[in-house]
Amino acid sequence: MESNEMIGTSVPRIDAFEKVTGRAIYGTDLKLPGMLYAKVLRSPLPHARVLHVDTSRAERLPGVRAVATGRDLMVRYGVVIQDQPPYAFDKVRYIGDPVAGVAAVDPDTAEEALQLIRVDYEEIPAVFDPLEALRPGSPLVHEKLDGYWASPIVFPEPGTNICNHFKIRKGDVEKGFRRSEFLTENTFTTPMIQHCHLEPHVAVAKWDPSGQVTLWSSTQHPYTVRREVARLLNLPINRVRVIVPFVGGGFGGKVLVKVEPLCLVLAMKVKNSRPVKLTLTREEEFFASSVRHPTITTIKAGVRKDGSLTALKTRMVFDTGAYADAGPVVARSSGMAITGPYKIPHVWSDSLCVYTNKAVAGAFRGFGVPQLSWAMDSTMDILAEGIGMDPVEFRLKNALEEGDFSATGQVLHSVGVKECIQKAAQAIEWRKKRKKYRGIGFGTLYKMTQTPSSSAALIKVSEDGSVEVLASTVDIGQGSSTVLAQIAAEELGADVGNVRVVSADTNVTPYDHGTASSRSTFHMGNAVKQAAADARKQLFEVAAEQLEVRPEDLESRGGFLYVKGVKGPGTPISAIRMGVTYGKGRPVIGQGTFSVPEATPLDQETGQGALPSIFWLYGAQAVEVEVDPETGKVEILRVVAAHDLGRVINPLNCEQQVEGAVVTGVGIALLEEMVVQDGTPVNRNFRDYRIPTSMDSPEVTSIFVEATHKDGPFGAKGVGEPALAPIAPAIGNAIYHAIGVRIKDLPITPEKVLKALKEKGGKKK
Amino acid sequence: MESNEMIGTSVPRIDAFEKVTGRAIYGTDLKLPGMLYAKVLRSPLPHARVLHVDTSRAERLPGVRAVATGRDLMVRYGVVIQDQPPYAFDKVRYIGDPVAGVAAVDPDTAEEALQLIRVDYEEIPAVFDPLEALRPGSPLVHEKLDGYWASPIVFPEPGTNICNHFKIRKGDVEKGFRRSEFLTENTFTTPMIQHCHLEPHVAVAKWDPSGQVTLWSSTQHPYTVRREVARLLNLPINRVRVIVPFVGGGFGGKVLVKVEPLCLVLAMKVKNSRPVKLTLTREEEFFASSVRHPTITTIKAGVRKDGSLTALKTRMVFDTGAYADAGPVVARSSGMAITGPYKIPHVWSDSLCVYTNKAVAGAFRGFGVPQLSWAMDSTMDILAEGIGMDPVEFRLKNALEEGDFSATGQVLHSVGVKECIQKAAQAIEWRKKRKKYRGIGFGTLYKMTQTPSSSAALIKVSEDGSVEVLASTVDIGQGSSTVLAQIAAEELGADVGNVRVVSADTNVTPYDHGTASSRSTFHMGNAVKQAAADARKQLFEVAAEQLEVRPEDLESRGGFLYVKGVKGPGTPISAIRMGVTYGKGRPVIGQGTFSVPEATPLDQETGQGALPSIFWLYGAQAVEVEVDPETGKVEILRVVAAHDLGRVINPLNCEQQVEGAVVTGVGIALLEEMVVQDGTPVNRNFRDYRIPTSMDSPEVTSIFVEATHKDGPFGAKGVGEPALAPIAPAIGNAIYHAIGVRIKDLPITPEKVLKALKEKGGKKK
Repeated sequence: MESNEMIGTSVPRIDAFEKVTGRAIYGTDLKLPGMLYAKVLRSPLPHARVLHVDTSRAERLPGVRAVATGRDLMVRYGVVIQDQPPYAFDKVRYIGDPVAGVAAVDPDTAEEALQLIRVDYEEIPAVFDPLEALRPGSPLVHEKLDGYWASPIVFPEPGTNICNHFKIRKGDVEKGFRRSEFLTENTFTTPMIQHCHLEPHVAVAKWDPSGQVTLWSSTQHPYTVRREVARLLNLPINRVRVIVPFVGGGFGGKVLVKVEPLCLVLAMKVKNSRPVKLTLTREEEFFASSVRHPTITTIKAGVRKDGSLTALKTRMVFDTGAYADAGPVVARSSGMAITGPYKIPHVWSDSLCVYTNKAVAGAFRGFGVPQLSWAMDSTMDILAEGIGMDPVEFRLKNALEEGDFSATGQVLHSVGVKECIQKAAQAIEWRKKRKKYRGIGFGTLYKMTQTPSSSAALIKVSEDGSVEVLASTVDIGQGSSTVLAQIAAEELGADVGNVRVVSADTNVTPYDHGTASSRSTFHMGNAVKQAAADARKQLFEVAAEQLEVRPEDLESRGGFLYVKGVKGPGTPISAIRMGVTYGKGRPVIGQGTFSVPEATPLDQETGQGALPSIFWLYGAQAVEVEVDPETGKVEILRVVAAHDLGRVINPLNCEQQVEGAVVTGVGIALLEEMVVQDGTPVNRNFRDYRIPTSMDSPEVTSIFVEATHKDGPFGAKGVGEPALAPIAPAIGNAIYHAIGVRIKDLPITPEKVLKALKEKGGKKK
Repeated sequence: MESNEMIGTSVPRIDAFEKVTGRAIYGTDLKLPGMLYAKVLRSPLPHARVLHVDTSRAERLPGVRAVATGRDLMVRYGVVIQDQPPYAFDKVRYIGDPVAGVAAVDPDTAEEALQLIRVDYEEIPAVFDPLEALRPGSPLVHEKLDGYWASPIVFPEPGTNICNHFKIRKGDVEKGFRRSEFLTENTFTTPMIQHCHLEPHVAVAKWDPSGQVTLWSSTQHPYTVRREVARLLNLPINRVRVIVPFVGGGFGGKVLVKVEPLCLVLAMKVKNSRPVKLTLTREEEFFASSVRHPTITTIKAGVRKDGSLTALKTRMVFDTGAYADAGPVVARSSGMAITGPYKIPHVWSDSLCVYTNKAVAGAFRGFGVPQLSWAMDSTMDILAEGIGMDPVEFRLKNALEEGDFSATGQVLHSVGVKECIQKAAQAIEWRKKRKKYRGIGFGTLYKMTQTPSSSAALIKVSEDGSVEVLASTVDIGQGSSTVLAQIAAEELGADVGNVRVVSADTNVTPYDHGTASSRSTFHMGNAVKQAAADARKQLFEVAAEQLEVRPEDLESRGGFLYVKGVKGPGTPISAIRMGVTYGKGRPVIGQGTFSVPEATPLDQETGQGALPSIFWLYGAQAVEVEVDPETGKVEILRVVAAHDLGRVINPLNCEQQVEGAVVTGVGIALLEEMVVQDGTPVNRNFRDYRIPTSMDSPEVTSIFVEATHKDGPFGAKGVGEPALAPIAPAIGNAIYHAIGVRIKDLPITPEKVLKALKEKGGKKK
């Protein structure tokens, strides 16, 4: 048997036709009979008690079918910390907090009704600066934090604004610093930014008074929405059905629970079970969906002259806004990767997730690691320079290797970072002399995945050998359906063109933790592979009886069955009877589950424990920039992105993932910032908030380092998030290389470059 | 462990709330965005060549979006014989044959457009009488029968109108007659009747040019529709999705392929993938959907004076109309049960399925057995009288027993007919003297099920222990979802209130042969039971790890887990982590398949072979009637229905099945007949075609005889069809008992009774 024919092959996207012809039905396209349209009244104040909401005039407006307020469902949701009501009922905590919702026959009527709702607020002091929020006596965003359920892996500190404090205490960091021959301490910051997925958040909710909820939602987390909504309404989980249409981008912005409760509360109030659709406006996307955490990272690191890192001390403050959402685990995930892909014997790290009266910060492609990389890889260049060592050599000297320990004490496997650094340096021609104002910089990537977590899959083989994969992974544009189809086809020996992937519908597609954390290829890939192996076993049993051979003598590939050692054209799988009407046969359904259970929880005080991540992703990027000293403008000439993603299932798809992430990374490095003044996000549209266009997209060279993982499907790991993280520090380092100035606060705007040049005297080093 | 708590319990219907509150969405309720409405132009001639169809004027009518004719898809479908085009392209074969279809923005426009289509026909001689159709030289409904694919179990005779000839040749029937001491030969007939399910046939078709079909169909056979539609369009099966909404009755009328191709052809012609809905009118239901076969049965039987049956010779002619549909297998199924539940050593039987230029006859609750029972159980009373034996004693003497052979040579298991006869006789107080004009009659039931066939099921257990059963069985009102939920709950140890059954959607719910032949409880019940056992095994493994016991020490019931031998309240299944986010656990998905493969096909010449039916159903009914000798009107005073259905899963549900079938049986016995004149069905509405109302419903006493089946789930067999068959002969025999006249042609109208009384002289025996 020719092994792995389908693996490492650039199979075209299986959903390409529907998408390019405009036939794919996205959440925003959904239109159901009798559907109503929702709009949300949001708080204009950053922090205030809600004294009274008068909805009577809105209710009387013709065309209005329901008005909802916080009093309609006084329950809090939250996957990590249960701190968020659908509509505010005690107080509002940020400008944008939902106060009331209207369902009407059309969006304009709903919008008009919002104007008729009168809310009496009592404004109270707000806190916007996370450092101020940390001080004793600061206004508390949540007074009763100790009354909220919190996931066992996060540690809120009641009586403060801290909703998670993740610590690493490894070795003796002060001793490490004493042994250092060069020390540096700096503070790096990143701003609030937005995901800017082109499809906004959208959900349609339908309520049946028999106690059944149907939600169509543009979500990355159908099973999480299902569980949380069931909990909100105290329903058995199987009474909530979450159907995911085509999703127009997510980037982490559509994980956990987002707009679903808002339209659900309205759906429970309208008559005749009419469905209620809520689509956020682009403006709401900016100030009232979720954002990437602004961070303030103070990082102190020491090194010996031979280039060996001795100690690292960090304090990362994640400004998580008004509600926890994924914030506490973003801080934890970033904290676990605090060393970057480097060996550091002594580590002291505090990752603080802090409530403020600002927009909710949550998951964003990279889950805290891009903010960390910005600080850590900038620091690496400062250290290399401090001891006069080549930054590539310096990184290679300290890079993690197979069998090394992570900062949390995990033994690492499948560690391709050295090769990534080497290949990136080689491809960018690091040794070659550059023109004036041109520079090269490097950044790296070291990222965990959500562990523990589970995925399950089913595979149905039809009577003609065509295949359905049932998996709740959401193809948010990353191409997961194609990759899962390849894995299924490979394992089953089917023709990939004959494989369909059924999108998430929690009534029927099996459990998945969610589409996030670069986990789908690994976790769901394993589940699909196992389901396909199960289906193949059944297929061989059925076929063996019909072909009068033994099951163990059969093999399959490309849709055909072969008897081992027998030459010939093979038997098409379609010739095997799989549902019986006449003759022999039986249906073939394969089942697979993949679970990574928790081994030992990390110790709260030291962050030490076993198996905190089933796999780690590694990468290194090299960037060449040219800086215009007159304007401060940075031009990205070229990006080399070398990533260890384990075995590559679909090279073209991986390239697309890398290129997309690099472009986003360029935006983060150079352009993007949500400007917030007194809690008010100022730039709330694509005119005032700039993201990279195709004109800003650099040439990208993708290099794949295949450090195959023993537990990955065919050795694969993942590639969803990694390529976004290294780009900002690589650009920052390249600018330093080009013109000798170091920017520590993203984004690197021409103004900042000019200011730094001016302070330095405008000379290249 | 308290065993089988859920089995034998009258759990209320799990879909009752949705149905009684009017929230259940039936096929007729479906409304999709952009949906168009179809109407069908049907042949006004019984047999004619289609020379030309001019659709140009119809196409120009504003609001019309597509017009389809036979030329659009010149392929034939048919599950048993591929003889039927979506729209006629060579000739029309009955009054009602589809010639063209229109899809328009509303039904009125579609209807108006039909009037603008001009069809040029060349009329050719038609044949309406099946006996005439059997004569050489008769017009052939299908000239090219030998060019059509036919299922391997049916035997069409090309060059004739015979589309199946099923024979039984067992023993030496002439020798048997020679040994008889009393012989009788009679001809019994049954008319064409209609299913009269309240929801008409309805389907919505959506076509995507990427080669994907979605069908919402009120069908009993989603997987059959899927396979046939895929074959029609030469698509892989997984490109066709069949979704079944709530179904408002079927009774066999919605098996196999019905209206789906008609709207599909239109859906392929309209722009922008707009869905096209076709709902038959009640009139179309009568003359252009499908009907029950009219039959002509000549039956000769002999008996010895001691009451032992010696020989049986039958010739049953099934008038199957213009296309085969299920007709050939109806004739076969009836032929296999030709002896009724009686031991007869010598059998010669011919079951002929004959094409005529009339409406298509297909499956109807009982699948040919009611027609046979009418002839056979009337004959049994004639024989008993002939030898002066009590008809109950006579039946008991000849009734089949465990280990006896069927007419096809199968060794019978789970044979409860004797007990049914005894209990029915006892309950009706057979020995008690009756008033004048009152009489008691008996009828029996002996019915096979579709063998071979397969069912598959999946069971998902949610994180809170709530359960989803994925099964493609269609709940057409028979209560299958409730029964499957009980089986799942029992096997899994779950609370039945926490079990949901997901209705058929071929993309996700696994293969099922179809909802027909009283097979769902047995076949799908077995698949669900196996899936639940698989899920329970996984659940115990997951739970054992979390409860720190061994899986084999666990047991489950009512939603709780118990450690064997340990007293206490148990652990709710909801406390076990089944999808992992934090902590241990893994998803639980059980899988089950149940297949009855073909052993040896029955021999074509003798009908002998092994395993023709995995189970047989038995029953006996006793009816008390009072006949008004002045009007001829027959009043049903009481019906006792004793049925052997194996283990009873849900007594209330079984009673409902029996009562519903008895009422239908009363209609068939006394009221129903489609009058066809020169190929034209005359009575096409509920004014002219009378079905029993609640006023016509007799008191029914249901008695369940539980001859448990070794292979049935918890010993169950089925109860969908049986109670309909014995009622007509029981009434016929009761009339004879009351007034001494025997009616041989259904329905038993007052006119026929009066006529018979007049011929006899009007005296009670």
